[in-house]
Formats: sequence, structure tokens, C-alpha cells
Amino acid sequence: MMEEAPPPASDRAAIDGVADVVGGIDPDLAHRLRFLLELDRLKGILRRSLVLAGERRENSAEHSWHLALFAIVLAPYAEEPVDLARVVTMLLLHDVVEIDAGDTYIYDKAAVERKAEEEHQAAQRIYGLLPGDEGAELRGLWEEYERQDTADSRFAHSVDRLQPLLLNLVSGAVSWHQHGVPASRVREINSRMATGSTELWTAASALIDDAITRGILTP
Amino acid sequence: MMEEAPPPASDRAAIDGVADVVGGIDPDLAHRLRFLLELDRLKGILRRSLVLAGERRENSAEHSWHLALFAIVLAPYAEEPVDLARVVTMLLLHDVVEIDAGDTYIYDKAAVERKAEEEHQAAQRIYGLLPGDEGAELRGLWEEYERQDTADSRFAHSVDRLQPLLLNLVSGAVSWHQHGVPASRVREINSRMATGSTELWTAASALIDDAITRGILTP
Repeated sequence: MMEEAPPPASDRAAIDGVADVVGGIDPDLAHRLRFLLELDRLKGILRRSLVLAGERRENSAEHSWHLALFAIVLAPYAEEPVDLARVVTMLLLHDVVEIDAGDTYIYDKAAVERKAEEEHQAAQRIYGLLPGDEGAELRGLWEEYERQDTADSRFAHSVDRLQPLLLNLVSGAVSWHQHGVPASRVREINSRMATGSTELWTAASALIDDAITRGILTP
Repeated sequence: MMEEAPPPASDRAAIDGVADVVGGIDPDLAHRLRFLLELDRLKGILRRSLVLAGERRENSAEHSWHLALFAIVLAPYAEEPVDLARVVTMLLLHDVVEIDAGDTYIYDKAAVERKAEEEHQAAQRIYGLLPGDEGAELRGLWEEYERQDTADSRFAHSVDRLQPLLLNLVSGAVSWHQHGVPASRVREINSRMATGSTELWTAASALIDDAITRGILTP
């Protein structure tokens, strides 16, 4: 079954090749495929959270997949009525700007402030790959996510706080230890979870208390 | 900032710990979180497709994320009207059974047939972690995906054929070379794409022709 494999072509050239062939049949589809292939890069953006009980760092693509399922399964816990399909799309896309701007560790306040402009430029480039209305619509969902001024975006943020907190607890709080993050800072960053879901924040608070009791998190 | 990290705890014990703490407050939520943490394992199931221009193999979690966005962006190309929210949920969940049953290479016919029973047992265990109705509903979506007897599941299958084909072309068709898969077999496996979207199959066919012309796929 094994044959000699050719070396992989540069992906930019290969994506151009796909867009050229499809563009000869359907230019609109070619734009959409170029955008979708560009998204492949999110699989290479590493976060601080560890997956699989600490085996390796999580990437932003699999993180986004996990969050979408958190939203679906935890929808009954949303503080206000939400449009679940919008929340899911928002979460699938919320980190796409990291393809250009990189991941920002939420406990690094200076980096979070510095990144805003870079992320807006990234949004312009990446969503700009799509045909006009479609790109503007998806970019608008990302901007809504960033503003956190709607029920949908507040609930989306809540699950984006809960999932890394759970992964961190399940993998021995390694990333908090590595970055010297105490429980007080974990609470400060994550208490916003309550604006999207009081019940999820109540559960998360109990887990933080328990982690202190078990000595895996410093007060 | 760097402190000595404790060794990660076994994830089963840690997930039990989370479920115990949350179960003291809200047993329904504890079941949902157990299911969501179980899903983390899908990030460790490796497929044959390569990501990032061939840098490494794709895992089933990031694959599912990518497919959900394929469905959202390519929805205008669906053969029949679809309920996009259902299609997206179906795609986010379609590979979850691989946590127990492993990934099956679609070009390995014997393996595909052998796996059906294992996958059904996996569905019983994994969706069984959720409270009754919710587990049954999500499991039902997976069964519908497997049957391919609705517009939603046919479109979901179409994007599940298109995405690996595109990744393979962008990474020099390495996995087809490695497994000795010729263009005729690629066409045989992927022509079903047309039942969910004629236009996507037309584009994919043109890409297969082009790959033969460029010598990266044998006829």
C-alpha cells in the first residue's frame, strides 16, 4: 500500500490552485473555499489550556469545537433566552482572528489590551476573503462577541470562561501554576461568567473553592 | 512567573471530582459537564488527513469544527433546503463515537463495515452520560447522520467528503499516496457528495481532474 509521497507543496500556492480551478466554474464558491482553507491555520494556534489530562496544549480550532458543544448542552443554563444557532456560529468563529494575531492569555492584562487593534485588522483580512454580505455578517457576529452587549454574546463568553477552567482543573491546574495565577485572579477573570449564566458561575465558584481545599490552587 | 507544576492527575479521577462537587449543587449540570469533559478525548483521535499544509495529522475534534464552518459557509450550495442549526449540531457530534471506536479510514471498506457495531455501543455509552431526553435527542441526530436519509444528513455528509478532499489536495495528496488510493477510488468514495450538493461535487470533480493533470494523483 505504501508509495513514495511527494513533498507537500506550499499551502498558499496550493490554495491558490484550488481557487483557480473552482473559480473557472463558480467564482463565488472559489471565494468561500479560499476562506475555509484559510481557517485551517487556526488548528496551529496553541492556547495555554492543556487537553487530554495534560498531555498537550489545546489549539484554538478544537477549543472552538468544544465550546460550541458546551453552548448546545448548557443552553438551558443561559441567563436570558438565546438564539442557540447564533451562539454556536459565534463560538465557532470567535478565535479566527488569532490566525493573524495569535492567542492572548486572558490572565495577561497588558497583552489583552495591546491585541485589540491587531485583531481588528485580522478580521478585516480574513472575513474579507468571503463575498461581501456573507463576510460582513460573520464579521458582525465576531464584533458582537467582543462587545458582549447581547444575551447571545454574554452566554457565549460564559462558556468560553467555563471550558478552560474545567480543562485546567481536570489537568491539575498546570497552566495556573506555570503562570503563577492564584484563585483570587481566577475569580476576578471568571466572575463575568455570571452575566451569561448565574448557575454556571455558582458551579465554577464551588470548583475553585474545592481546588483551594485540595491544594491545587493557591488562595 | 514560572512555578513548579504538579503532575497532572488521572483525568477519570479528576472528572469524577468535578462531577462530585457540581453534583452537590445541581445533579443535572453535573451530568452535562461529565459528558462535555468526556468529549475532550476526541481531540486525541487522529485522522488520515493532514493539516497546515501537511505538518501533522488532523484530529477529529478540529475536523468537526472545520466541517461545521464548511456547512455554514456553503449552505447556499445545499441540494435541498436544510435546517442549518441541525446540520451544524450533527457535524459537531458526528465523530464522537470515535472516542471509543477510533477513526475509520473511509477508503478501507472492510474496516468501515466492521466498525458499525462498535460505534453503536460507543453511542450508547457516551450519549448515555447525558440526562435522558437530551442524550436521546443528540444520539438521534448522530443516527440520522449515519442513515443519510434526510436533506440535513445528506448535506452534512457532502461537506464531510469535501473537506478531507480539499485538505488532501492542499497537502500534496500525501495520504492518498501513502495508502495507494487512485483517482478512480477517490471518485467512487466521494461522488455521493452530489446527493447533498451537485455543485460541490462538480467543483470537487474538477479538482480531481486537475490533480491528475498535475501528476499528484494517479488515474
